Amino acid sequence: MSETKSAANDPDLTRLVDDLLTWRRNVRHFQRRPIAELEMERLFALAQCAPSVGNAQPWRFIRVRDKGLRAALADHVDEAARNAGLCYEGERATRYASLKLHGLREAPEILAVYCDEAPSAGQGLGRATMPETLRYSTVLAIHTLWLAAQSRGIGLGWISIVEPGRISAMLAAPPQWHFVALICLGYADAPSSLPELERRGWQARLDWRDNISER
Amino acid sequence: MSETKSAANDPDLTRLVDDLLTWRRNVRHFQRRPIAELEMERLFALAQCAPSVGNAQPWRFIRVRDKGLRAALADHVDEAARNAGLCYEGERATRYASLKLHGLREAPEILAVYCDEAPSAGQGLGRATMPETLRYSTVLAIHTLWLAAQSRGIGLGWISIVEPGRISAMLAAPPQWHFVALICLGYADAPSSLPELERRGWQARLDWRDNISER
Repeated sequence: MSETKSAANDPDLTRLVDDLLTWRRNVRHFQRRPIAELEMERLFALAQCAPSVGNAQPWRFIRVRDKGLRAALADHVDEAARNAGLCYEGERATRYASLKLHGLREAPEILAVYCDEAPSAGQGLGRATMPETLRYSTVLAIHTLWLAAQSRGIGLGWISIVEPGRISAMLAAPPQWHFVALICLGYADAPSSLPELERRGWQARLDWRDNISER
Repeated sequence: MSETKSAANDPDLTRLVDDLLTWRRNVRHFQRRPIAELEMERLFALAQCAPSVGNAQPWRFIRVRDKGLRAALADHVDEAARNAGLCYEGERATRYASLKLHGLREAPEILAVYCDEAPSAGQGLGRATMPETLRYSTVLAIHTLWLAAQSRGIGLGWISIVEPGRISAMLAAPPQWHFVALICLGYADAPSSLPELERRGWQARLDWRDNISER
């Protein structure tokens, strides 16, 4: 690649990236067709290019291949989602009950994403005062994988209604690893430019101006 | 936009996005030339498209315009970086001292990024068991802004060697807001396909295969 490529302010690139960021969705409805192994390798390789504090690259992906484990994860999330729904009442409760919150039974790939809390890489640089930046780096790797997938027509769904301790026990995760996310990957059933939660009347996009202040 | 755009597995798009993710750098060397106001607005609008738990959109950006505040932030980071360096010895200490860790004095734009810990949007969806997903959502907004900037030839530098309490006091941040990052935005002095920490012998990229396991 040439050194000029990174300057990158080419209107076509800008427009494509704007579309990619606008069209990125959290996918809950997946087709069952598999993702080619070469594509999975490419996605993992790109995720490795994510920013990380001190270049510590602390993300750890567990790829769930076992059918029994997949079923146990799906059952656990269903239970956690039912419990989380108990706080809603009336129309909000009805709307909550109608939401599909995960695609763990259909998606061809399931990943549990962890943060190594004491990685040897990076020599501690940048995290003396904010050790949480290791977990933030792991989030950046998930988002990098997300956009790499999206540009290939592959959707990602992030599941956060889980008991991290239960997931880690099921997966026998090393004690030094902190659970960050459970994710599904696969081809989306019905792409859309609007978030599913917006289409279903849960929460619309806010005006960005409300989130900016000045000093 | 047509519904087909989101399917998006067009080889040109894939290649451009792969390049974008590969060329994204944490920038510490900035030109002083300003970013046009329309570009800043576009970046904020795109950041608002980031994924967030329950679509809660909890990110809050404080744009630092005051010169005195900018100088105070730079002085604080210099001090925090000196303190963080005390843990290194010998050649590692020399190497640490030679690193440029921020561009707070040169970058045309400085943002402090916060997470609203009790946003009204999202109705609590998705964070019953993992409240930290609000902070993770804020990280996703920073990364979205980062890539939107990169595609316009604008670099971003994330500074994490700070005492969050000191920054929040300087900026009079609301108590409900949790500090996530201090960032610089501007045109990079010298783009590169390699992380600065790798070029300077601090930490190279690891093999992605070492970060994947299966169950």
